[in-house]
Amino acid sequence: MNKEVSGLNVDSCVLPFLPMLYVAWSDEVISPAQIRSIENVLSTSNCLQADQRQLIQKWLDPANPPSPSELQSWLSYIRANSSELPIDERRSLAELGATLVEGDALPKSCPTVNALNEIETQLGVLGEEATAEMLGKQAIVADKPAQSNVDVKTLNAYLDGEHAVLRNSVRQFFLDPKLSLDRIPENKDDYRELIFEWCELAAQKGWGALAFPEHAGGKNDVALYMAVFEELGYHDLSLTIKFGVQFGLWGGSVFWLGTEKHHHKYLKDIGTLALPGSFAMTEGGHGSNVRDIETTATFDPDKDAFILHTPNELARKEYIGNAAVHAKAATVFAQLVTNGESHGVHAFIVPLRDNDGTLEGVRIEDNGRKLGLNGVDNGRIWFTNVVVPRENLLDKFGSVDAMGNYSSPITSQSKRFFTMLGTLVGGRVGVPYAGLSAAKLGLTIAIKYAEKRTQFGPGGSDEISILDYTTHQRRLMPLLARAYAFHFGQQYSLGRYVNKTEDDGQEVEAVAAGMKSLCTWFTTAALQECREACGGNGYLWENRFADMKADSEIFTTFEGDNTVLLQLVAKTRLSQFKESFGNMGFVSTMRFVTDIASTTISELNPVITRNVDREHLLSRSFYTAAFKYRESYLLRLVAQRLRKRVKSGMDSFDAVLECQPMMVDLGRAYIERLVLEQFVEGVKAADESIQEPLLDLERLYALSMIEEHKGWYLENGYIEPRKAVYISKMVDELCLKTRADSAELVDAFGIPDGLIKAPIATEYPYQ
Amino acid sequence: MNKEVSGLNVDSCVLPFLPMLYVAWSDEVISPAQIRSIENVLSTSNCLQADQRQLIQKWLDPANPPSPSELQSWLSYIRANSSELPIDERRSLAELGATLVEGDALPKSCPTVNALNEIETQLGVLGEEATAEMLGKQAIVADKPAQSNVDVKTLNAYLDGEHAVLRNSVRQFFLDPKLSLDRIPENKDDYRELIFEWCELAAQKGWGALAFPEHAGGKNDVALYMAVFEELGYHDLSLTIKFGVQFGLWGGSVFWLGTEKHHHKYLKDIGTLALPGSFAMTEGGHGSNVRDIETTATFDPDKDAFILHTPNELARKEYIGNAAVHAKAATVFAQLVTNGESHGVHAFIVPLRDNDGTLEGVRIEDNGRKLGLNGVDNGRIWFTNVVVPRENLLDKFGSVDAMGNYSSPITSQSKRFFTMLGTLVGGRVGVPYAGLSAAKLGLTIAIKYAEKRTQFGPGGSDEISILDYTTHQRRLMPLLARAYAFHFGQQYSLGRYVNKTEDDGQEVEAVAAGMKSLCTWFTTAALQECREACGGNGYLWENRFADMKADSEIFTTFEGDNTVLLQLVAKTRLSQFKESFGNMGFVSTMRFVTDIASTTISELNPVITRNVDREHLLSRSFYTAAFKYRESYLLRLVAQRLRKRVKSGMDSFDAVLECQPMMVDLGRAYIERLVLEQFVEGVKAADESIQEPLLDLERLYALSMIEEHKGWYLENGYIEPRKAVYISKMVDELCLKTRADSAELVDAFGIPDGLIKAPIATEYPYQ
Repeated sequence: MNKEVSGLNVDSCVLPFLPMLYVAWSDEVISPAQIRSIENVLSTSNCLQADQRQLIQKWLDPANPPSPSELQSWLSYIRANSSELPIDERRSLAELGATLVEGDALPKSCPTVNALNEIETQLGVLGEEATAEMLGKQAIVADKPAQSNVDVKTLNAYLDGEHAVLRNSVRQFFLDPKLSLDRIPENKDDYRELIFEWCELAAQKGWGALAFPEHAGGKNDVALYMAVFEELGYHDLSLTIKFGVQFGLWGGSVFWLGTEKHHHKYLKDIGTLALPGSFAMTEGGHGSNVRDIETTATFDPDKDAFILHTPNELARKEYIGNAAVHAKAATVFAQLVTNGESHGVHAFIVPLRDNDGTLEGVRIEDNGRKLGLNGVDNGRIWFTNVVVPRENLLDKFGSVDAMGNYSSPITSQSKRFFTMLGTLVGGRVGVPYAGLSAAKLGLTIAIKYAEKRTQFGPGGSDEISILDYTTHQRRLMPLLARAYAFHFGQQYSLGRYVNKTEDDGQEVEAVAAGMKSLCTWFTTAALQECREACGGNGYLWENRFADMKADSEIFTTFEGDNTVLLQLVAKTRLSQFKESFGNMGFVSTMRFVTDIASTTISELNPVITRNVDREHLLSRSFYTAAFKYRESYLLRLVAQRLRKRVKSGMDSFDAVLECQPMMVDLGRAYIERLVLEQFVEGVKAADESIQEPLLDLERLYALSMIEEHKGWYLENGYIEPRKAVYISKMVDELCLKTRADSAELVDAFGIPDGLIKAPIATEYPYQ
Repeated sequence: MNKEVSGLNVDSCVLPFLPMLYVAWSDEVISPAQIRSIENVLSTSNCLQADQRQLIQKWLDPANPPSPSELQSWLSYIRANSSELPIDERRSLAELGATLVEGDALPKSCPTVNALNEIETQLGVLGEEATAEMLGKQAIVADKPAQSNVDVKTLNAYLDGEHAVLRNSVRQFFLDPKLSLDRIPENKDDYRELIFEWCELAAQKGWGALAFPEHAGGKNDVALYMAVFEELGYHDLSLTIKFGVQFGLWGGSVFWLGTEKHHHKYLKDIGTLALPGSFAMTEGGHGSNVRDIETTATFDPDKDAFILHTPNELARKEYIGNAAVHAKAATVFAQLVTNGESHGVHAFIVPLRDNDGTLEGVRIEDNGRKLGLNGVDNGRIWFTNVVVPRENLLDKFGSVDAMGNYSSPITSQSKRFFTMLGTLVGGRVGVPYAGLSAAKLGLTIAIKYAEKRTQFGPGGSDEISILDYTTHQRRLMPLLARAYAFHFGQQYSLGRYVNKTEDDGQEVEAVAAGMKSLCTWFTTAALQECREACGGNGYLWENRFADMKADSEIFTTFEGDNTVLLQLVAKTRLSQFKESFGNMGFVSTMRFVTDIASTTISELNPVITRNVDREHLLSRSFYTAAFKYRESYLLRLVAQRLRKRVKSGMDSFDAVLECQPMMVDLGRAYIERLVLEQFVEGVKAADESIQEPLLDLERLYALSMIEEHKGWYLENGYIEPRKAVYISKMVDELCLKTRADSAELVDAFGIPDGLIKAPIATEYPYQ
């Protein structure tokens, strides 16, 4: 049964293909690669006879496309023969095609329908959109979102959590005129004194001692201390870091590495800032490689004392906070030597200054001006045979008796070193909080400004809010989602840290190190984007980005360089992997492939890798599986690559060296997965009234991360090209949706206007 | 003919598949997706009978993999039966497999060999590597590079180009103790005076007037001026910008928008800095939207003068360089109104200060401290009915006679506006030079430091240079390649600008705007990465990143926000496209698909999209085609999307709004392609003695950009997954290779140590 269409005598078997052909040649963008895949389906399907197939192939030939009049006649035919379709019925191209066989609709199982369905799946063409257009209806697009109805109060209470009262008192404290940011002077020396004054005010509130025992004026509660530290991130970061150096690093080292006698002697004065001190670990020659620091602490039995000494120029203690001006003492890390034998890195309390200045044998030099944090007095310290009494060894993990005999509860030097360092992980738990608060503040400023700032508008009409720019939504909304995600990730990290046991220590440290890396990189990136999004206004000091950017910039380096930390995270994951899979011998390699294949084979089913349904893309099962797959695949891949190199005779150091970038990826994938899971848990646990906006943010976080890694997912066949396109479309849509709530979502951070302070956020447009 | 292998009676047809099977299950990482594609090849090939195919499929079943002993027996068999293979002969898996059919090697055209070749192509398995390993040889890996033999002197001369002498005199000038960066004070007021002093010293050399006519003390040569401006980027960027504001913006506006009378009256004093001035275009309410500024200049025939007026608070002139302290006059942009009619934006010379201070009707407020560039005195200006004589209208593009009659050589207000702005494109040509110089300096510091800085090393051995870390190479080497690429891109942009005619004006402006965007984003990213790569040392003020980062950070915003500029670039490309394709009606859409399909169909040939040969990946034809494809595809895609929206009844403003992110991508793709082409031309034109290192950089630039966009290329079927993996491998290799030359490659920038100044680059390791 032939039909007269566009001057051709078209076999009715070909008719069902017309809608597909029309779409291929009209507006919807079909790439040559996709045209090829249509041909593939046709050539393997038995729905057509050779001559019919040839006709369609001819119509698909890019070198010889159908003429406009041919296309027009197809369209007329399609429209004329589908006019009875219910107006709102969503139809696939296959269904539409099937109705074109007059009076004799094709059965659902017919090869032609199968082929069309296959083509539609492969192309990922949105059938309803394409058919609606062909039939002359408006395409179905996401509506512009209505006004936000986010319950800011409930959301804020949820984010503030159990320490809301303490948090609020810190925020109120900042509104005291004494704490005004306008007091910050240009001169770094004056700035340092101001910060010291502020730090004293905070200490007077008892906040510095919160993590210390009660006998030292504290509450023995690290979580309270961290809540204060997190709030400090909204004020001046020099204060935050000065506070952290004094109470967290200096106080923390005495608390964690010392014993009762040290606690009773020092902690109270540390908590009140009566005894300002430093944490002197890093050396000029050894940034992240603490194990190889060169300062020595040699026991002298005659003096019953340790002799602290800096053996060469680069072994000076470097970038030591509090050291240039204020510290009276420091916890100094040095190689403990006694009876001619070295026992590795230990910590010693070393007095640095009295009221008359620097003590004998101690030389301190100012690190001078820095990129930021100029309210913190960093300095370099050299020791020339400085004598400190034996009792100044912080001896929780190793002690020396009067005869110079060394003893330790931990026999292995290596294990001792890592145990000791492990107790100091609090710094890595804290830093991302400070960074995240700065990022939240930056987003608050950028979003509040963008909401009110107008620029170009439609010709002759009013200018529109720059937050209506899709570019601007794309710049800010995924960052807002990430800030929320990291919020829940940090809650988890802190919880793990607070409840840390000996057994899970390594994992807790890995989580802290990884969160520190990702969160601080996020801070740097978010503040950069927010500054740019505020244009010239973002560059003015009054609008906060200047200091927030400069001050937080070093977070990616201190407490461990992020790139190094992520390799540490990867190593922890690998050792966990090794535990469950034996020594990576031949059999475990076998298991690798088996394991990865069988656990993921269902996800790599083409139906899933090509699935572009909204419900699927927005489902937790899709995106959590994607995050897990990436982590687990990278883990096994790195394990295998390392093993392969070592097996082939390569030094294990060189093997790791070659795999570094992939280890960084692995560390990142692990934390990203963990953050997503924590976000999901956080959303599930939230009050129903705030679930919807949180769920949108969760989805935006998840899909924008998958989009960021789409190269990897495509490379590994986890998603097919069209699916990547649809994920991007979904991110666009979620950005638009979040934009409607964005002012409320930043309000929920609960930063008072007096603390936001930036005129572009609180006073714009100026009258 | 059956063979006893691993306890199975294996049909000899199956034997050739053993090497492939072994590789699939052993070290080389084969993903489940790839296992699936092996099955696909087998099922469509007629090389095997059903039972043979089933056997192989069984061996590929992830749920039931071959046992280790089976694998071992396969390996033994392969080794035993291929022992006669020449040791150095590179064999594919197919060739190796073919030799396993004892005494009866398979012909090259046999279906089995074809299938194996197809599998190998699809998987992209490096045959020679895999076979070498199976046969017990070491894998072939890239050797660690030898010492560099880059001819620094020749390369430096090539980069310096024709103005080498001038460049060197600027560099020498900076070494004068008067110009020492150590003189930079913390206090912004002192800093501004120092910068003014430095600017005067530069003016005394005649550098400020280089672009001006001879009667004004100049040489009428913009290229000379730009060479000086580029060199200034190595010193303090506040000086660079102050210099640019005074001579480029203030002087440039008088030169380009004024006529002879203005030139003779002002330019000489501007060039000597006797008449410091401002360029007052931007308003508080209108950042990038200059057309809608609100300041008015209303002609009053009675006074024969214009009345300059700021109608509301946000219409104040904002962030105006030189305004807060030094400017005596300014070019003020305002809506020209005469006889009750507005003629759009025009420029007027408005006196601001005399020796007694601000003039009547002028109010100036200091913008205060900024994120950076604190040596430049930015301010806000309000005008309250300020009267300026009629002759102060810069009247090249529009004049008003004594009666208040307006006339212009350009009738269309819109065309006049864009022509006027077009003459000011010099700023956009210049800014990226300043940014690029800062980036080059940052890379110089980071690479020189990394070369000497050692950290972790193999257990018990010396620490190694951190530049041997693959992570560090990955951080810095692609950036180094990009710095070189932008160098040639900027040369082109300047060349086009210098030779600009009326016909190519729009294109020249697009190139300048696009280069400005990409170059300044590159600067921000490169300096961030370099700072982090230098760790804590990078944070010390003495090591230069503090100021370079802060000062250059605003480059992404001023002279036009980068995101807005790239949309401008895209619009220019679209209008060029429209010119050649008509009005985007039905027929042109047809042409779109035809065009893109026929010009690229050959590249999308699977043989090419899967080709992972070294020669192919490193070939100019591969990567230049990839860059071109991306640009041309995005161009057509954006055109089509815009058309589709407008056709469906959407307001054209809204249509553009929805397509913004893609337009930004298009602008970017255009400039990236152009930069690559200019890099290629630059390498071709170089002396043979320096071609090799330049070619490596060109390849690194090209492949690392493709890697950055791999998501896009995969999404669009331009490369297949395995090819993406091999491109990344090639980037690794090029990073390693470039690392060997990197110290020389930064030396070739020719920045003297006294100007580099950072102790970590010039004095490390400290003694």
